Amino acid sequence: MLGIIRVLTTEDQAVLGKHGKIMEEDFHIQSVSRCIEEQPQGIYNDESEKAAVPKIVQLAEEMAAEDSIDAITISCAADPALEEARQAAGIPVFGAGTCGAYAASMLGSNVAIIGITEEVPKRMKAVLGNRFHSYLFSSTVRKTTDLSRSGAKEEMLKKAEEAVEHGADVILFACTGFSTIQLKEYLQAKTGVPAVDLVEAQAIAYYLIRKS
Amino acid sequence: MLGIIRVLTTEDQAVLGKHGKIMEEDFHIQSVSRCIEEQPQGIYNDESEKAAVPKIVQLAEEMAAEDSIDAITISCAADPALEEARQAAGIPVFGAGTCGAYAASMLGSNVAIIGITEEVPKRMKAVLGNRFHSYLFSSTVRKTTDLSRSGAKEEMLKKAEEAVEHGADVILFACTGFSTIQLKEYLQAKTGVPAVDLVEAQAIAYYLIRKS
Repeated sequence: MLGIIRVLTTEDQAVLGKHGKIMEEDFHIQSVSRCIEEQPQGIYNDESEKAAVPKIVQLAEEMAAEDSIDAITISCAADPALEEARQAAGIPVFGAGTCGAYAASMLGSNVAIIGITEEVPKRMKAVLGNRFHSYLFSSTVRKTTDLSRSGAKEEMLKKAEEAVEHGADVILFACTGFSTIQLKEYLQAKTGVPAVDLVEAQAIAYYLIRKS
Repeated sequence: MLGIIRVLTTEDQAVLGKHGKIMEEDFHIQSVSRCIEEQPQGIYNDESEKAAVPKIVQLAEEMAAEDSIDAITISCAADPALEEARQAAGIPVFGAGTCGAYAASMLGSNVAIIGITEEVPKRMKAVLGNRFHSYLFSSTVRKTTDLSRSGAKEEMLKKAEEAVEHGADVILFACTGFSTIQLKEYLQAKTGVPAVDLVEAQAIAYYLIRKS
């Protein structure tokens, strides 16, 4: 079973289990989701990431100690505490952002990242190296709640088309919120280039190590 | 449908279709396999790789022109002609070795490669960068035909255990022949660390871009 670490504090089971539900429905992956404490706004800057690191490491250690959990994923594009949690857990630990960046690297040479934040997640960009093509976001889609607004998908499509026009051969998402609005299918159909979704990328990483 | 390029010349349909058969059985992927001409020994040194490059590019172009084929993989650990074929095809092109190296990078920080050749495939090593841990091969398992010998799996296990003892947290195969002897399942069960199989890594790359 995959342990999913969510980096925002929530008691809403639907919110907490959102990524796990997609993995179950689309990939038949069994998982358990837990969240860090006292960060209802999640991670949104360097300070909030710093505060989250020891909480993520502790959660990873606790989950790794459970017999039923054989791998852990940190389900956040920023991959907070990835190395630290990996060292602490003693079982495979991966993260949404880097899994997405490696998945995109399989498929093309010029990877455009699209997100909702002003800055590109730095670990994702570092993984891409010279395969990084560009980072794009829409000025009108800046919070995950904006994603459910009508017109949001079309806004992201405009950005993706812009990137493809300038030579991008893969689109990589930098927001796990894109998974819940099926943006991948929409963009792939419209642009003709592969789009890499972060929940899917984590599912694929777990798929690689599932016990047979 | 996935187009599989085999880099050895064969008229034996079972040999030609071996990787496609695993992808169908294990991943429900439909594929068509074609091979390059006049290289019955495949690619085994720089010269034979150089001779294969234009043939692979031409085959990629031909396959990309077929409506039913929406992506192409070069099913060889050395990833010959990957960039050239990508530029020529106009549809996603990926390669066994780099897909494996990116897949392994999702899962750990110290990747040991095991193979049958004296030298580590250079593109795989380049992808791993500072995640490369070591390259190992057994002096008694040097040809794909050696893999079916009794004791071959145990020989590879010895090498994998050696790597894990010295800090490797992922085992990556550098030979597509390992896929046909189910080495992955055996090594994972015995060593407790994830093992990445090259046919599986290609299947996962195609899974990411399948049309929905």
